[in-house]
Amino acid sequence: MPAPSPAVIDELKSILGPKGWTQDADLIAPRVVEWRGAWEGNTPILLTPSSTEEVARAVAVCAREGVAITPQGGNTGWWAARFPTGEVLISMNRMRAVRRVLPLEDVMVVEAGLTLKEAQDAAAGADRFFPLSLAAEGTATVGGVISTNAGGTAVLRYGVARDLVLGLEAVLPNGEIFHGLKRLRKDNTGYDLKHLLIGAEGTLGIVTAAALKLFPVMRSRATAVVGLETPAAALELLAVAKAETGGGARPELMNRQGIEICLAHIPDTRDPLDTPTPWAVLIELVSGEPGAAERGMERILGDAFERGLISDAAMAQNATQAAQFWRLREEMSAAQKAAGGGWKHDVSLPLTALPEFVERAHGALNAQFEGIRLVTFGHLGDGNLHYNVVPPVGAYPKAFAARKDEGARIVHDIVGELEGSISAEHGLGRLKTEEALRYKDPVQVAAMRAVRAALDPQRIMNPSVLF
Amino acid sequence: MPAPSPAVIDELKSILGPKGWTQDADLIAPRVVEWRGAWEGNTPILLTPSSTEEVARAVAVCAREGVAITPQGGNTGWWAARFPTGEVLISMNRMRAVRRVLPLEDVMVVEAGLTLKEAQDAAAGADRFFPLSLAAEGTATVGGVISTNAGGTAVLRYGVARDLVLGLEAVLPNGEIFHGLKRLRKDNTGYDLKHLLIGAEGTLGIVTAAALKLFPVMRSRATAVVGLETPAAALELLAVAKAETGGGARPELMNRQGIEICLAHIPDTRDPLDTPTPWAVLIELVSGEPGAAERGMERILGDAFERGLISDAAMAQNATQAAQFWRLREEMSAAQKAAGGGWKHDVSLPLTALPEFVERAHGALNAQFEGIRLVTFGHLGDGNLHYNVVPPVGAYPKAFAARKDEGARIVHDIVGELEGSISAEHGLGRLKTEEALRYKDPVQVAAMRAVRAALDPQRIMNPSVLF
Repeated sequence: MPAPSPAVIDELKSILGPKGWTQDADLIAPRVVEWRGAWEGNTPILLTPSSTEEVARAVAVCAREGVAITPQGGNTGWWAARFPTGEVLISMNRMRAVRRVLPLEDVMVVEAGLTLKEAQDAAAGADRFFPLSLAAEGTATVGGVISTNAGGTAVLRYGVARDLVLGLEAVLPNGEIFHGLKRLRKDNTGYDLKHLLIGAEGTLGIVTAAALKLFPVMRSRATAVVGLETPAAALELLAVAKAETGGGARPELMNRQGIEICLAHIPDTRDPLDTPTPWAVLIELVSGEPGAAERGMERILGDAFERGLISDAAMAQNATQAAQFWRLREEMSAAQKAAGGGWKHDVSLPLTALPEFVERAHGALNAQFEGIRLVTFGHLGDGNLHYNVVPPVGAYPKAFAARKDEGARIVHDIVGELEGSISAEHGLGRLKTEEALRYKDPVQVAAMRAVRAALDPQRIMNPSVLF
Repeated sequence: MPAPSPAVIDELKSILGPKGWTQDADLIAPRVVEWRGAWEGNTPILLTPSSTEEVARAVAVCAREGVAITPQGGNTGWWAARFPTGEVLISMNRMRAVRRVLPLEDVMVVEAGLTLKEAQDAAAGADRFFPLSLAAEGTATVGGVISTNAGGTAVLRYGVARDLVLGLEAVLPNGEIFHGLKRLRKDNTGYDLKHLLIGAEGTLGIVTAAALKLFPVMRSRATAVVGLETPAAALELLAVAKAETGGGARPELMNRQGIEICLAHIPDTRDPLDTPTPWAVLIELVSGEPGAAERGMERILGDAFERGLISDAAMAQNATQAAQFWRLREEMSAAQKAAGGGWKHDVSLPLTALPEFVERAHGALNAQFEGIRLVTFGHLGDGNLHYNVVPPVGAYPKAFAARKDEGARIVHDIVGELEGSISAEHGLGRLKTEEALRYKDPVQVAAMRAVRAALDPQRIMNPSVLF
């Protein structure tokens, strides 16, 4: 795509005003450098509009001139969907208003530049709960998590970002404003186009605001870690937990090697279980009834012991202990880094295929890369595994990291055979699209391309991202 | 669109074989006559393929020849999305296999021609619950309820059809098979095109099979009817019920006039409340814990009495009584018909706008049509009201029915001003699209048309339906 001419740059500047843009390399740098230092982008100008109308006017200029645009949220994603390589970079970080909080409707309307943490706080201020929660929530933005359809730890109960959006306001690739901020839970009047924008990684438009679902604050909470022998037992435990709670459990799976690496590398962590088992599951229950979460947990653990699914269990006695349990799970990524880094795979499987995946992937990787260590954790309820591989003890981390595509091919081929997904949570961005093409149904890819070409015939929106 | 030539008809016949088509007027008649007798369609041929491949081959022929197709489910919808006026009619009613039921995954894969009731039974056979439930469930099909994104009575807890679909198999307008039956709860690898097909009313393809979410069977259930003065009090009651249950309540709103009409016209109904109040709410709670639903209901009713929200309450003492309570709600449509028919409006509102809607709509209608009676009922939790109008006592029903557009305009204008939807559950079909155009954001309509033209450039799929 052509670089924007000086005249176009000037027009964008005059639309957005002095606070609405920068070309200062020092200010742009943090926006185009990845948090792990893995890659670096560049842009002729960073735009920071203050209103949806300004976004629309800026996009209209780019559409008229055929100039490419990359939208960026909190710069926390994995696969470089938000990295410009010469595109105009646009950030919503001056659009962070909480437009409305309506506790009686269980809805809030917020602008795209608000961080996830700020959105959670706005809900809490109205005695409500906004469940989307992930490690980067202090910087990840509402627009970013919607555009990438982020998941996080509350998926089983509340769903992914897609499930939490009632309505969207966005600017389409032609510069028109999509007025879809309706606060309705039911509306059958044509195609539900918000679902196209959600997870589109900025290729079909720029999300400027969203009407988000809120939930009641829970009145009881119970957290436990249990030890078990196999992923198959974990699946049966999941079924027990769902039956006992009517579907409200939130279990996270962790492998023993991952736990050991976490215990070894992260300060102030300790094993909640007395006896090490090959797998552990962290379960959290919540309820609107005081005491019900605790009773539910006791029933689940009782059932599971009786059926021989678990061999050990630790129930958190208070919030501090619950936080300790969660810390083990949440620090797995940091532990991996400390232990030598390696490769990450963000896969999902049909639940019943999960045990086979774990066995086959381990076997195949080990055959190719002797001595590797696995840090496996993830959201059991939705079959999402962060299936990460740490270099063998003593290996040279950079040399191992360089072989990541070789490892990914092995893992992804097994995922493909088992009808899973090679990107459960983190999207495809610039870096994973080629890989995804190996596994996607060509009819679906062709349909995606047709839809994209219909809405963005010049392909100016994030042109290097997705199909 | 051109009528299919004899050669095309012959080609379709040879693809589908002798059991796969009919031109017998007696067999076609029940397919092209509406259940209320409100309209009648016609078709040169009814196709009943037995496999997805047959559907694909038939659609490919139509695409090649530019012949229009109308897909039909159980022929139970409201707005004639499934009525051919000269199009080839295609039904999935020979494709009703339950391909897989996977209780450990809480997933079943079923074909589009299965009825909703059969789908519920298949789930129950595996000790699971499939929650989509509506009056026509004995004839409505899985493909039909997905294509219309049907709602029903379990929405607040489980969502509409859209929320229950994990994956879809479909035949696109070009005759290609969309292989999207993945049983994944998380998959971020490009646009989620199943959401385009859901609710598209057969305009973007033909759904042939679906992977559906299942849920645990609940272990306790409590049902109550409460009396209250205003819709505003009902909203506060909803908030209380959500807080006490963590979101698991399922309240239905009913107006007094509707209840009286039901009591007068439907045998074996009786008022659960001792004292008549202007509004009543039917609440149902379920829980995975034995006894928890009953305890939850007691807390809700206790809170609500204490806050002065409700003046009377009746709690079902057993399943028979609960069924009686539900009967009052479920027979409202039949009662309306018996009382003289009239008009139906299927609207949804932002929850906090619901009281204003009820007041304004009643005032405006009454000013224009003195003596009308209202049958108002609906799914409180999602702001969906079936806002139905019965002719004044003594009015001539046919004359009143003939003024339905006049009434709809009044109701829909108020819905539009309050940012609601004029079709919450029943879609637009052939009959409501023009009306919807008055209220839809033109940018969204243009985007829908662009997407449709991209996937169906000849507009052969259900050409008279939607935009």
